[in-house]
Amino acid sequence: MKVEGAWRRTIELAPGDDAVIVLDQTALPHRVRWLRIADLAEAASAIRDMVVRGAPLIGATAAYGVALALRAGIALDDACRTLAATRPTAVNLRWALGEMRALDAAPGDRADAALALAARICDDEVARCEAIGRHGVAVLEALARDRGRAVRVLTHCNAGWLATVDWGTALAPIYRAHDAGIPVEVWVDETRPRNQGLLTAWELAQHGVPHTVIADNAGGHLMQRGQVDACIVGTDRTTAAGDVCNKIGTYLKALAAHDTGVPFYVAAPSPSIDWTIARGADIPIEERAAGEVRRVTGLRDGEVAELELVPAATPVANPAFDVTPARLVTAILTERGTCAASRDGLRALFPEHGPEPEAA
Amino acid sequence: MKVEGAWRRTIELAPGDDAVIVLDQTALPHRVRWLRIADLAEAASAIRDMVVRGAPLIGATAAYGVALALRAGIALDDACRTLAATRPTAVNLRWALGEMRALDAAPGDRADAALALAARICDDEVARCEAIGRHGVAVLEALARDRGRAVRVLTHCNAGWLATVDWGTALAPIYRAHDAGIPVEVWVDETRPRNQGLLTAWELAQHGVPHTVIADNAGGHLMQRGQVDACIVGTDRTTAAGDVCNKIGTYLKALAAHDTGVPFYVAAPSPSIDWTIARGADIPIEERAAGEVRRVTGLRDGEVAELELVPAATPVANPAFDVTPARLVTAILTERGTCAASRDGLRALFPEHGPEPEAA
Repeated sequence: MKVEGAWRRTIELAPGDDAVIVLDQTALPHRVRWLRIADLAEAASAIRDMVVRGAPLIGATAAYGVALALRAGIALDDACRTLAATRPTAVNLRWALGEMRALDAAPGDRADAALALAARICDDEVARCEAIGRHGVAVLEALARDRGRAVRVLTHCNAGWLATVDWGTALAPIYRAHDAGIPVEVWVDETRPRNQGLLTAWELAQHGVPHTVIADNAGGHLMQRGQVDACIVGTDRTTAAGDVCNKIGTYLKALAAHDTGVPFYVAAPSPSIDWTIARGADIPIEERAAGEVRRVTGLRDGEVAELELVPAATPVANPAFDVTPARLVTAILTERGTCAASRDGLRALFPEHGPEPEAA
Repeated sequence: MKVEGAWRRTIELAPGDDAVIVLDQTALPHRVRWLRIADLAEAASAIRDMVVRGAPLIGATAAYGVALALRAGIALDDACRTLAATRPTAVNLRWALGEMRALDAAPGDRADAALALAARICDDEVARCEAIGRHGVAVLEALARDRGRAVRVLTHCNAGWLATVDWGTALAPIYRAHDAGIPVEVWVDETRPRNQGLLTAWELAQHGVPHTVIADNAGGHLMQRGQVDACIVGTDRTTAAGDVCNKIGTYLKALAAHDTGVPFYVAAPSPSIDWTIARGADIPIEERAAGEVRRVTGLRDGEVAELELVPAATPVANPAFDVTPARLVTAILTERGTCAASRDGLRALFPEHGPEPEAA
């Protein structure tokens, strides 16, 4: 998508193929800064410190991290272990490491093969997001036709281009609709504590999509007053039965959507589906550092600066994700089409992952 | 309640009776600063700029504002009009102005009588909050007995001592339980955009009540995982049928409580009940300045400072309240006892305000 008018990806191979360049998401929306990741340690800390974030982009960065590790003579197992320990919730990370582990190449060709595989994982990721946009735009098109005016979509966190390699997941249908001339306006949840909503606002602005930032508290009220036509969010891990783990606060918006009759969609590329578990309650929820709630970053006199919001003596808790039960999800948007948030719905689109049918 | 160990009220008559002294809530939790309000204009701007806030304290401040205006020779009607225009949602403001309008005194005695009436309104407010604590503590006592451990209460915004003259509404039962040796721990919603949760954390800390600040997004997850035994919130206006208007985001927590079987209590002193309307949808919702979302205040190098969080070009919306339908409220805690959130429940406690029974 566009950064200051030029088409870029969030992660790109550096000239010379000895590093990758990533857009530093800790500096956005205030500064556009590209960072070079040249080895395993830099890849791991970029993921851990959320220089890169969003389940699909975490997976892509981990894939390149493995490739850079192999090039430096680090054992595949060691590289995967280091990267797997960075973030516990997103399943794409484990999925991408699984793909890299399955690398089949002679020892001498391994590093080059790993780099090629990482590049393919990124290209596939882009293709999946592009397909989600293609399928999801039908939902927005129908709403626009029905309402006879701009469709107002609420989204939480950032499940846009910045969370993926290109296009985004939840925002892919919005970009596609906008490009097709279907008017869309986006309510952007601020998404405390890390304010990823500001990333969403930034990328929507880069692409010219109308949007309004709101406090995380406001979405329920807007839905009650008929100001939201649909919610679309991403996911860090969706179970085989359609329970959706996503950024903390998603569950609250899903409850409000359900209570007010607003359709609630989840954009889930297949690597974010965890076929090994059914119950959302079984997903480990990352507890992140209290400092994320305690301190906040913004501009002061034109410079990026930090403030202490919560006094140091005040205890703070910071769970990073929650689980939205499948019953609150209207449909899941995948690269293969749209389906019900259920075992049957997902199995119909991805039969290769489905459990055996019940014995008659 | 206690400020740095000494018992104070949020609003106190200054020596000489020619002004009131209020605790400046825009400086908390970082600085304890008392401000002098000497005339109508200062009273109005203190309410509008949220130097004082919380429905009961807004009412108390408005009462003193009228008294100071009369002393300066301003007509009662003009004073009431000015103060009524400061905040549209809280009904206590209108209630307190109604009490002041009904002042019955000879012209020469009017200013003194107004001052005495404002003082009585404050004392009555304290008595109501104290009674809410007395009734509400039974709820916490029963939960503590049932759980056999500390009771974990989630609260939103600040409905504590700082929102009233003393004791608080939602926090009154918590203070009373704590003082009685019933262990209570409080989950404190940050409450963006103005972060009144930090006021709640500050006053709980002053009184020694254990608490933890969380992002507004976190409460639903904590309820899902069994970490919350009850929610207690305040209200800016509750309808005659039990719909509860309160700080934006309250509705989302009520939905989560309902979905997870956590009891949801609303502490409503009677001046916050609007007997003239039944439907929450009829309550005007204040849209406050975008700057509240855009900028944030905290400490930087030990000094109170402001940051720009949301870039100036990004559109922002800032509805300040939402409405929780009565069906999501377990019970309303009033100064006369606890009742169902319904017309019948409220009428049983306040028969003088009840509508005529339906004709048979």
